[in-house]
Amino acid sequence: MYIGIDLGGTNIAIGIVDENGKIVHEESCETRSEREPQELIDDMIALVLKILDEYNMQINEITAIGVGIPGLADKDGNVIFCVNLGWRNVPLRKMLEDALHTPVYIDNDATVAALAEYESGSMQNCKSGLMLTLGTGIGGGIIINGEIYSGFNGVGSELGHTVIGENFYNCNCGRNGCLETFASSTAIIKYTKKLIMEMNEPTIIMGNVEGNIDNLNAKIIFDCAKKGDKIATLAVNRLIKYLGIGILNIVNFIDPEIIVLGGGIAGAGQYLLDLITKEVIANKYYKDLPIAKIVLAQLGNKAGVIGAAMVAKHGDI
Amino acid sequence: MYIGIDLGGTNIAIGIVDENGKIVHEESCETRSEREPQELIDDMIALVLKILDEYNMQINEITAIGVGIPGLADKDGNVIFCVNLGWRNVPLRKMLEDALHTPVYIDNDATVAALAEYESGSMQNCKSGLMLTLGTGIGGGIIINGEIYSGFNGVGSELGHTVIGENFYNCNCGRNGCLETFASSTAIIKYTKKLIMEMNEPTIIMGNVEGNIDNLNAKIIFDCAKKGDKIATLAVNRLIKYLGIGILNIVNFIDPEIIVLGGGIAGAGQYLLDLITKEVIANKYYKDLPIAKIVLAQLGNKAGVIGAAMVAKHGDI
Repeated sequence: MYIGIDLGGTNIAIGIVDENGKIVHEESCETRSEREPQELIDDMIALVLKILDEYNMQINEITAIGVGIPGLADKDGNVIFCVNLGWRNVPLRKMLEDALHTPVYIDNDATVAALAEYESGSMQNCKSGLMLTLGTGIGGGIIINGEIYSGFNGVGSELGHTVIGENFYNCNCGRNGCLETFASSTAIIKYTKKLIMEMNEPTIIMGNVEGNIDNLNAKIIFDCAKKGDKIATLAVNRLIKYLGIGILNIVNFIDPEIIVLGGGIAGAGQYLLDLITKEVIANKYYKDLPIAKIVLAQLGNKAGVIGAAMVAKHGDI
Repeated sequence: MYIGIDLGGTNIAIGIVDENGKIVHEESCETRSEREPQELIDDMIALVLKILDEYNMQINEITAIGVGIPGLADKDGNVIFCVNLGWRNVPLRKMLEDALHTPVYIDNDATVAALAEYESGSMQNCKSGLMLTLGTGIGGGIIINGEIYSGFNGVGSELGHTVIGENFYNCNCGRNGCLETFASSTAIIKYTKKLIMEMNEPTIIMGNVEGNIDNLNAKIIFDCAKKGDKIATLAVNRLIKYLGIGILNIVNFIDPEIIVLGGGIAGAGQYLLDLITKEVIANKYYKDLPIAKIVLAQLGNKAGVIGAAMVAKHGDI
């Protein structure tokens, strides 16, 4: 058995996970990221011990512990940084191993989610594939021949920061045109607000945000587009156009077997999948040749805990 | 010993190549691509027999023959198409094997060049890397753990057709914004002509094309930029900006160990390398972390013959 820890900006979720990627027991607590790393790590340790106790297991029955972090760790398990948590150079592996006496493995959350989908989700029966997590930002995780591909410098994949066009606002990273400024939930919200401000067009969106545009989210926009709302449709079409460019860049670059769409935007489900599949097929380079299957992620927000446990299962590469 | 065949749009070059990627003897003939595939293949066979005779070797002393093609072949060695040669569905492997009774392996020319640089050029001592061939178009070749990465559908890498911005003309592929419309020799020539037409600016370029703008090539533009010519400098700066985006997209996507620049544009040598290295470092995502080395290809136009022979050496994967 393994333990998977999903260290998120809002919650820390921890689960006991079996060999096949099935969560047998889990709990979560609030992250409260304004605290010191040591305090968060103490919470993780306490929660690991709590779920073991609740499930009547001893720590020595756990083969290894995996952690998915919203940032970057080096090969020794030191967290180089997690921007949203304000962490820099935190020896997370050592701190957890010293307390729990069990091997600890750490990887990026988007990478971890890709491994979860590979082990027990939509990439099962594939050898290689890629997962795009379309959330507040965009993360990428690459699996090659059943293992995480982490790159030469361990940076893995920062697909959200590949430049694919010109945009009306700059990315947090300082550049202009990053994929995540076109196809994340943040991006579609920003663009929809811009349309509402600039177009003199009635929209049912306003009836769905209780009169406060700050309540706008990607789900509302997709729902209003499905109902034919003009502004919502323009915003969805723009996201589809640029997500199509992003996906075709992946296809034209590494020609993967499968591309999995996860994160909040993928919550739009079959509606999103139909639109993006049509867009990609219309613009693919080799018209007569097959390209990667495009599918929705299956594990939702369980991918973090499952994938972290699977990182533990795969151990050091 | 191996034989490498570089099937180009202008010439067919064929060499006898040793295990270490050294050409011991070579010859070439004109392609004359307006002819039928059978006629070109007859020329290849005759030239293979000729160089063996000249070097006093028998065909049975050759372990295998490799061919680099300006197009796409399937895993059985059928050429699906070579656009510039007008080939579609040519059973090249079978035709050569029937005539020469020696195993034949076929791959894309950009991929083949990458393998050549890996075996005996600028990627020696690296495990994984990527080569960008910046010529009339842009090709990409990926090496992972010492082997060609050909992708799931065998399409390998069409990096020239990843979209990275918005351009003033469409790509041959029908889309707008492809890398090769910004950073190929065709691209810099088109942009320079546009500047000459639109800007009322004296330029030394005109003195270098014998008064006929159709004689313009990338080398002239780089040479004039080095001398401080304003139009040439604008054109080079634009190429550098977008080549930088293309390279950073590669870095942010697969974080390779090394990126090799080849093709005609790479003929600008250290001048190009200094400009692009500065551009990439100024815009990289993780400011504190190392990224791929960027280097110039070492084998020049020998990469085609050497790489084809190395494809033969590696055999079926």
